[in-house]
Amino acid sequence: MAITGEIENKTVSYADFEKYENEVVTIKGTIHNIRMMSDFAFVIVRTARETIQCVYSEEFSSYRMSEDVKEECAAKITGKIVAGVQKDGSKRYELQIHDIQLLSHPADIPPVVITKKQVNCDLSTNLDYRPVTLRNPKERAIFKLQEGIARGFREFLMKQGFTEIRSPKINFAGAEGGTNVFKLDYFGKQVYLAQSPQLYKQALVAVYEKVFEIAPVFRAEHHDTSRHLNEYISMDFEMGFIDSFEDIMNMETGALKYIMNLLKIEYKNEVDLLHIDIPEITEIPTLKFMEAKEILMKKFKYQPTDMKDFDPEEEQLLGKYAKKQFNSDFIFITHYPSKKRPFYTMDDPEDPEYTLSFDLLFRGLEITSGGQRVHDYNEQVAKMQKLGMNPEEFATYLMLHKYGAPPHGGLGIGLERLTMHLLGAKNVREATMFPRDINRVSP
Amino acid sequence: MAITGEIENKTVSYADFEKYENEVVTIKGTIHNIRMMSDFAFVIVRTARETIQCVYSEEFSSYRMSEDVKEECAAKITGKIVAGVQKDGSKRYELQIHDIQLLSHPADIPPVVITKKQVNCDLSTNLDYRPVTLRNPKERAIFKLQEGIARGFREFLMKQGFTEIRSPKINFAGAEGGTNVFKLDYFGKQVYLAQSPQLYKQALVAVYEKVFEIAPVFRAEHHDTSRHLNEYISMDFEMGFIDSFEDIMNMETGALKYIMNLLKIEYKNEVDLLHIDIPEITEIPTLKFMEAKEILMKKFKYQPTDMKDFDPEEEQLLGKYAKKQFNSDFIFITHYPSKKRPFYTMDDPEDPEYTLSFDLLFRGLEITSGGQRVHDYNEQVAKMQKLGMNPEEFATYLMLHKYGAPPHGGLGIGLERLTMHLLGAKNVREATMFPRDINRVSP
Repeated sequence: MAITGEIENKTVSYADFEKYENEVVTIKGTIHNIRMMSDFAFVIVRTARETIQCVYSEEFSSYRMSEDVKEECAAKITGKIVAGVQKDGSKRYELQIHDIQLLSHPADIPPVVITKKQVNCDLSTNLDYRPVTLRNPKERAIFKLQEGIARGFREFLMKQGFTEIRSPKINFAGAEGGTNVFKLDYFGKQVYLAQSPQLYKQALVAVYEKVFEIAPVFRAEHHDTSRHLNEYISMDFEMGFIDSFEDIMNMETGALKYIMNLLKIEYKNEVDLLHIDIPEITEIPTLKFMEAKEILMKKFKYQPTDMKDFDPEEEQLLGKYAKKQFNSDFIFITHYPSKKRPFYTMDDPEDPEYTLSFDLLFRGLEITSGGQRVHDYNEQVAKMQKLGMNPEEFATYLMLHKYGAPPHGGLGIGLERLTMHLLGAKNVREATMFPRDINRVSP
Repeated sequence: MAITGEIENKTVSYADFEKYENEVVTIKGTIHNIRMMSDFAFVIVRTARETIQCVYSEEFSSYRMSEDVKEECAAKITGKIVAGVQKDGSKRYELQIHDIQLLSHPADIPPVVITKKQVNCDLSTNLDYRPVTLRNPKERAIFKLQEGIARGFREFLMKQGFTEIRSPKINFAGAEGGTNVFKLDYFGKQVYLAQSPQLYKQALVAVYEKVFEIAPVFRAEHHDTSRHLNEYISMDFEMGFIDSFEDIMNMETGALKYIMNLLKIEYKNEVDLLHIDIPEITEIPTLKFMEAKEILMKKFKYQPTDMKDFDPEEEQLLGKYAKKQFNSDFIFITHYPSKKRPFYTMDDPEDPEYTLSFDLLFRGLEITSGGQRVHDYNEQVAKMQKLGMNPEEFATYLMLHKYGAPPHGGLGIGLERLTMHLLGAKNVREATMFPRDINRVSP
């Protein structure tokens, strides 16, 4: 026997129903919901991305539904496609069941109701039963949409000549200096789980000029908040030969435009089902950190408690300001104080108290941190020493600078956080398939 | 100020040289190599994916090369594109340097020579200096090619309606029963690093029907061989509603055809530079495990020591057999003995000593394990009990089966191993950017 790799479509998907109107076809899917009426029944079949309404009635065929036909059975259903006209004049297709062939049988009924419009239990129960609750069309749509966000990021960057990298997650040192890292015994050595691909993406800028990675990162933070996860997906990029750190913000803006457009077109099903308001991006306004503080104090009469960073309320106000002043869902805040940014951030030569860095706020919430990095060896060593760090401990990291690095910078976007804000959800766990937090590592 | 996201190309890449012949243009890149001749110099500039030959001579311009122009400087070079005709009649372009503007300066010369055709040091030194050695055009081509393999896998599966998933790497239990897993302290709880996305990809088959993931997996194996890594990239897929396990092999064959074609077209630079012999796939022959054993004994007079598995020499011989008998670089071996396959593998109903599983050999080396999984709850529980496992410990895993799963199966491909065999390399570390093995976690 030999395998040809020719993939044959043996069944019909809902998208093809129009073509086969009034014909008899076979579909495959899971029996999602059975609603018995007086003399007929609706059998809703769940396929990969849709639900299909099938109708059972003794009128149509000699097939008789058995007791075995239950919700969550996998099935092959043959029937005739018929069209009904909806209120708005559009056609909606259903399948008049001629035959049902069961392919598998559940052993029990689901512990949580998944057939309603949404899963109506508390978040914790929802997460406990993820392998089941994700079967709900709205729940799974969230992560299909998330696929689209990551896909858009990747597609856009590949079109821009970026190389996709896959850096190791078992690291010999914590990238950002050693706090909040998970420690691991590695054949008797102590090693760490990667907090970010920072070291690697910077090293690879000297190899491929522009690189990106979409991969898990691990943070041993003790926070138990609605916006923190201990494992999350970071979408990172790093680009060399930049003229200024605006090149990085420009690349991100291009990526976000591309992503939002992709979601509108290729993920329309999910966008509609989740009632997502996709932001329109023409351009993204920028404000310097100190300008933003001034606006908060003068326009919003807000008295900041910390002049080195923003608290969540300040971010909210800046989001409102962006919407009102610029009609933008996004705003870049630039030139953060040097004290609050990592050691590899380039200080602003015009005012070294501040940095060539930025955060991006989306509807008043931070989704990105980025900036230009120090590329000169002596400058990086001096900055480390000023911060009380020992450059010798960073010899591997400093290989990049010592043997020559182009001017470069980059950023990281938390995939779950961006998904959460798009959804308008209140808890990042709603936008995480299998969240890991201080209390949860299962399922 | 506002950021538009419009990306402007300020420089010219080698691909555009033909268009700009005899014009003055500006390129950006790293000075890879300087070769001084009697009255002129070659300055080889490394860009993201190519090297460009530039020529310096006092003839061309009033610019005078300074002492500062060194290898591994990032630079912006302006000059005139001129064409030379090569032996085979094709044109080759070079840049007559009018001006060099340095963008960065290395602090030291590389510890390993990277300007030769290949990095001529032992593998261990090469790996120690990865941030530098990867700058060598041949070294970096390996991982550009690797990008192409993963990209091909993904693109093909997305065209086939698969959903991309990102399962958590911090797990509450080892997927395959708890051996060879890295243990981790997680806020006082003992957890594990994912050995495979098995649990999650199976669970998600009941959600999205067809799913795939390309992500790191972690194996705490004590092996120190040329083919084992403790962290590697696994390309996994899992598909539901299969008619038989041949559907899985067929999907893999389709994916491999797509990948090889993509490499030939979009990664031609790298394929040529690395002298890679891309396999031609029309169809892939299959042999049952016991048929293969018989061929080994009868045709090759090889006396197997283990009738439940193959040793590396047997795999080599089967590779030769596939080439000679079927002119194929690949061969599927199917129906492995039940005793050697994981607990979730479906036994062959016609002969339960064997399984509906397969390995794929590529030029005599295993690159894939796959098969159909048990989808029925009672069948899986019974199989676990027969194997001495406690189903209660797998309650989360068994949610899939208990609440209904379609017939399904899948596979995993080791990305670095596949890359290694394509290269014809002897050690998997040559095909790993930053390998983790029992002795190495750095850089």
